[in-house]
Amino acid sequence: MFESAELGHQIDKETYRKEEPELRQALLEAQFDLLEKGNFPLIVVIAGFDGAGKGETVNLLNTWMDPRHITTFATDPPDTGELERPPMWRFWQALPPKGKTGIFIDAWYMKTIFDRAYGQIDHAQHDQAMDRICHFERMLIDEGGLLVKIWLHLSKDRQRQRFKDLEKNPDTRWRVTDRDWDHYKHYDKILVAADDALRHTSSAEAPWIVVEGGDTAYRSLTVGRCLLQSLQRHLAARREHAPPNSLPPLLPAIDNLHLLQTLDLSRSLKKKAYKDRLEKFQGRLSLLSRHPGFQDLSVVAVFEGNDAAGKGGCIRRVTGALDARRYRVIPVAAPTDEEQAQPYLWRFWRQLPRRGRLAVFDRSWYGRVLVERVEELCRPEDWMRAYREINDFEEELVRHRILVVKFWLAISKEEQLRRFQEREQVEFKRFKITDEDWRNREKWDLYEQAVGDMVDRTSSAVAPWTLVEAEDKRFARIKVLQTLCRRIEKAL
Amino acid sequence: MFESAELGHQIDKETYRKEEPELRQALLEAQFDLLEKGNFPLIVVIAGFDGAGKGETVNLLNTWMDPRHITTFATDPPDTGELERPPMWRFWQALPPKGKTGIFIDAWYMKTIFDRAYGQIDHAQHDQAMDRICHFERMLIDEGGLLVKIWLHLSKDRQRQRFKDLEKNPDTRWRVTDRDWDHYKHYDKILVAADDALRHTSSAEAPWIVVEGGDTAYRSLTVGRCLLQSLQRHLAARREHAPPNSLPPLLPAIDNLHLLQTLDLSRSLKKKAYKDRLEKFQGRLSLLSRHPGFQDLSVVAVFEGNDAAGKGGCIRRVTGALDARRYRVIPVAAPTDEEQAQPYLWRFWRQLPRRGRLAVFDRSWYGRVLVERVEELCRPEDWMRAYREINDFEEELVRHRILVVKFWLAISKEEQLRRFQEREQVEFKRFKITDEDWRNREKWDLYEQAVGDMVDRTSSAVAPWTLVEAEDKRFARIKVLQTLCRRIEKAL
Repeated sequence: MFESAELGHQIDKETYRKEEPELRQALLEAQFDLLEKGNFPLIVVIAGFDGAGKGETVNLLNTWMDPRHITTFATDPPDTGELERPPMWRFWQALPPKGKTGIFIDAWYMKTIFDRAYGQIDHAQHDQAMDRICHFERMLIDEGGLLVKIWLHLSKDRQRQRFKDLEKNPDTRWRVTDRDWDHYKHYDKILVAADDALRHTSSAEAPWIVVEGGDTAYRSLTVGRCLLQSLQRHLAARREHAPPNSLPPLLPAIDNLHLLQTLDLSRSLKKKAYKDRLEKFQGRLSLLSRHPGFQDLSVVAVFEGNDAAGKGGCIRRVTGALDARRYRVIPVAAPTDEEQAQPYLWRFWRQLPRRGRLAVFDRSWYGRVLVERVEELCRPEDWMRAYREINDFEEELVRHRILVVKFWLAISKEEQLRRFQEREQVEFKRFKITDEDWRNREKWDLYEQAVGDMVDRTSSAVAPWTLVEAEDKRFARIKVLQTLCRRIEKAL
Repeated sequence: MFESAELGHQIDKETYRKEEPELRQALLEAQFDLLEKGNFPLIVVIAGFDGAGKGETVNLLNTWMDPRHITTFATDPPDTGELERPPMWRFWQALPPKGKTGIFIDAWYMKTIFDRAYGQIDHAQHDQAMDRICHFERMLIDEGGLLVKIWLHLSKDRQRQRFKDLEKNPDTRWRVTDRDWDHYKHYDKILVAADDALRHTSSAEAPWIVVEGGDTAYRSLTVGRCLLQSLQRHLAARREHAPPNSLPPLLPAIDNLHLLQTLDLSRSLKKKAYKDRLEKFQGRLSLLSRHPGFQDLSVVAVFEGNDAAGKGGCIRRVTGALDARRYRVIPVAAPTDEEQAQPYLWRFWRQLPRRGRLAVFDRSWYGRVLVERVEELCRPEDWMRAYREINDFEEELVRHRILVVKFWLAISKEEQLRRFQEREQVEFKRFKITDEDWRNREKWDLYEQAVGDMVDRTSSAVAPWTLVEAEDKRFARIKVLQTLCRRIEKAL
């Protein structure tokens, strides 16, 4: 990847002085076009060798463009709050919304490259990490983002020269650290690892651009032009709308037998048995949440289900067993403006709990493959790819020792009608029933199909779905509590 | 992935008898539409558990549709010719051309799934293998193919029942093997591995469709409808043409310094020194090709370069040292009709040498990112993704102990002119110069840029480019021979 970036590119000051103002003006204009008309974020990755001018370049971009619409993310060692979340969490937090620019120095790359160079991970693990990055970046692009990846390169000789020069000058001596020299010692290994990483993650939509970093003028103009051209092309292209792709159908309904129909909805619990078990399992859950091992764990509980299936009641029986400082219930409604300006998973990433905490999602990221699919709030290609993205997301959580427990609460169409009518009649329950509920009800079969596909495609060994027979509320609540206890016990 | 396929789906005979003729007719019509109007191949993967009806389904499809336009590939143990090529080679050989259908039983999946289930590979290696499959399938789709993936499922109980039933009947007893019972014993592990594999490789464009295999009527109708709907949608969609995507620029030319300009084209050899070294290196190459270790190796040598740079002369000096039974020179011209009906890498896959052999490509798969890019013979998104595809291809070769040696022969624009003129004047060389050569020459700068990008993006540690200063033919030939010898020595 680095051949053309070791040639000694440079430009004379005269040329730079002539070209810089024009480029700067054009960049600023493109940035405002993005802000006003662009319905996408600009995500810039600036990675590369120490001493190749990463910091300078980022500072320059912030000077050329309007820094109010740029956020710069430097990959410092993670703080403790970040350490308690999956590694990608802090990058999600820093993603720019539509219209804005985010610059990520070193981004999600350098740690893996160094791990590989220093022999912390083997080849297969490196490839796994790179593929996760590919999926993440693919998702950013599928969600409309413009991703520009720039590698600032220095040959080994030039890196040494650069460090020596900086050390000679008392004003810049502090910029060269022991870590820099250690990296220099491992230059060859880092080079091989970086070459592999860049080749692995270069795609047609987001190719790596390797820029020689030795000459400031050359580097600055090249990076600037790169950004400018990418931005201009993307702005021009976004005005047209791509026609829907041909997408294959999922499993066709041949015999009208669906997963949900196989549930035995007659299962129920007598009042006395319910009270006993409620007490028992709430006690168990309470103890579990105070278990020392729970401090190294987080729990994400997801509640989905038919309208009026009793999610709220189940959730209250769970939280009733817990210390309020330890849990958070996140009711998922329509996304806010801020959330709408981000990839759809963003609003769930931001809610991930710290260690020792429990996050309860009342509805969740599964809206994408349920309501958004059925109500055609997104394109088929969007919900089709969501299965994969959701699996990736949950795998990331599980890898970070976050327990993912997912419940689908199922009731029959008749029971739903009964509950709807009841809600309309009982004063204090009337707020719970809306026209939308009645509309959703008309699409019962479509939802049933969507739930089947969802369970089939996202019930993984690490994050399985639990289908809950919820016709009898007591039975449902106990099954939820019991499942949650068992999953936590297994994880401890 | 299997929840909905363990419900006991079935259809009564009456329904089947009513629906089958209609489906059959529609499938046949769709198949002929594909043949006549469809500019793409239909690639069907039928995988799944033993006893779930893979064979029966494939036979049925061949009955319903016109078997003259279907090829069926059963993944039997590879023959010795196949073992000498990379594992994917035999699948490439079996890919259907545009307009036709290829059915792959078990395809490129079952080996990895069994390896995982039987503990032959670990989790990271499994993910690596699955990602390679993802890239391969992505390439098939990007090249316009319609890929339909069907998993025929049986629950553990039903698998045992199925085997017992078959064993009871003397006519079908032979169909149940020890291997089947061994797989049954490992059912749970295979299930987990398959679940992982399917989830990993399900994409929006080619999702896995899991079909319960127990009831023949249900299974047949479901698979048939699936194929029919996929085919109909794809045929309808292909008629519109997608507008060009917005693609980012590669490295912009800021200072007009290109990789090729850094070559010292004045390097040359005197006649005497040339003769000595020619003899020496040809002797060395000859010995190397007869080295016992060479029998476990294959060599793929790629020659690219400016028109009139002397590729032919270099190749003759290489082959001159070899036994004619051991090498093959593949001059790459415009693709044949048959080749044009396949993904562009297909015509190179088919030429891969057996063990102990050497394949010399006079021009190669790099045409995609050179002439096809510059002459706009393919869309930008096609050559942009080609870097990745080429890297994948060469990695596959290297992983299979095929040595990949790539030469770019460089001459100056002036020297090219001199050689062109000479060719026009010398009678026996006149066939070597065409109008096209003159046209290419006009685009010298674009080619220079394309070569730079090519070397940057495809010169990997395992398959590096060697740039050859070819202004002096003697120097070039020796450098080629010497490089080849060294690479083979290192590999032995």
